Amino acid sequence: MGRVGRRLTAEVLSIGNELLIGHTLDTNSFWIGKQLTKFGWNLERVTQLRDSLGTIEDCIREVLKRKPALLFTVGGLGPTHDDMTLRGLASALRVPLVLNDTALRFISATYARLERVPRMTWFRRKMAMLPKGSTPLPNPVGTAPGVLTEMGPTRIVSLPGVPSEMKGIFTQSVAPMLRRSGAQQPSEARVKVVGVFESSLAPVLARARRRFPALYFKSHPRGRETGVRSLIELHVYTTGDSNGKAVSDALSFVVSELRKTVTKA
Amino acid sequence: MGRVGRRLTAEVLSIGNELLIGHTLDTNSFWIGKQLTKFGWNLERVTQLRDSLGTIEDCIREVLKRKPALLFTVGGLGPTHDDMTLRGLASALRVPLVLNDTALRFISATYARLERVPRMTWFRRKMAMLPKGSTPLPNPVGTAPGVLTEMGPTRIVSLPGVPSEMKGIFTQSVAPMLRRSGAQQPSEARVKVVGVFESSLAPVLARARRRFPALYFKSHPRGRETGVRSLIELHVYTTGDSNGKAVSDALSFVVSELRKTVTKA
Repeated sequence: MGRVGRRLTAEVLSIGNELLIGHTLDTNSFWIGKQLTKFGWNLERVTQLRDSLGTIEDCIREVLKRKPALLFTVGGLGPTHDDMTLRGLASALRVPLVLNDTALRFISATYARLERVPRMTWFRRKMAMLPKGSTPLPNPVGTAPGVLTEMGPTRIVSLPGVPSEMKGIFTQSVAPMLRRSGAQQPSEARVKVVGVFESSLAPVLARARRRFPALYFKSHPRGRETGVRSLIELHVYTTGDSNGKAVSDALSFVVSELRKTVTKA
Repeated sequence: MGRVGRRLTAEVLSIGNELLIGHTLDTNSFWIGKQLTKFGWNLERVTQLRDSLGTIEDCIREVLKRKPALLFTVGGLGPTHDDMTLRGLASALRVPLVLNDTALRFISATYARLERVPRMTWFRRKMAMLPKGSTPLPNPVGTAPGVLTEMGPTRIVSLPGVPSEMKGIFTQSVAPMLRRSGAQQPSEARVKVVGVFESSLAPVLARARRRFPALYFKSHPRGRETGVRSLIELHVYTTGDSNGKAVSDALSFVVSELRKTVTKA
């Protein structure tokens, strides 16, 4: 569409059986999507995976083939046996896991604050075993550091699955990176359309799309369409350039077209 | 692990820009995961995708290569231009979209109930254009029918993204199909572990895993591990066979091991 020169694309891999068995709702990738949108980035795909080494490795390889500028892995950085994200990442990148001194110092310092007699066990040291060539990102609220790795055009950011830790590392280390990318804020507007079927709104949106090709038009039916009065939320937005004028022009166009063609139910 | 003879595997593709820009939290795939678990099925992967025809087609092809027994697509069945799931599915299966008479009758009947002078527009007829060889599934609460297609070992169920419609079709047409698969109910137990670091629980869980290889042990830190008192939810579960005894034995084992090794903070 020619809106931005360099496509600021991202993907998220959310890792953990709990996401797939109906135990934990994946609010992490949703939150990351909201942040990326705010910074003018495009989250292209989210994949939720089981704690399975082969699956994690395969899936990271698949993502890297699509060459996003950013890949987030979320979850699986902790001390337990089923925390295997970094092993999967190292395999996918064909590098060994090596003990990272900075990460180890960070983990030791955290437990030194928490325990009278801190011990560096195998399970704690595991959190400092990072794919060779990667950098730990400080965790301001927990013990497992985040990890930054690069592979070709893709920066890979691994974050823990505990939401407060994920957000803490993101805010401290990832957000400044996104800001530096210089993307502009997206523009958007939402309106509620009452008493019009989505199938009657559809031809109006088709005309609006032809007239404003750089914008996205998306209709979201809210509640039941049948029985009660129809309610649709219409969302008009653009990403990558701050075209607030186009968004408000488009909304005026849709409203005026709807007035002409409104369905009398 | 030899727990079930036939692996009851499923994947979900959740389709819609709104999921990726931080606008709508994908509660649909979470709900489907909960249902599948209840019926003894394994949801292996969830993918959230943009409304892009090429991406939808590619992703469906990728899933079919993994040969799950069930694939759900959720979203993109409506009348608007960006509802393109069935076009993507037809391309992935290399079949044409054809007007399905049963679906058309269903859609006409719905609008006949809702409008004084119902009209069958191009946008409404679009919802009855299904991949050749597929079957419509009645929508008890909306206008777009669900769609059932088969490809090799995989049954593909396409559901609308409006949660009430997705659940309505699932409950009416999909749940009976899952029940017929004859899988047994999974067993599970959850306990809260207070005042133990996850890194200190880790070696206990490693021993428990060796002793009960047919069970899953998963620790979920709740809240901050540092500063306040540590709280971990421990989830022990099995799928595919009703082994309630093993789950309670495993819990007793973990509790007794923790008593021996509890960290004194």
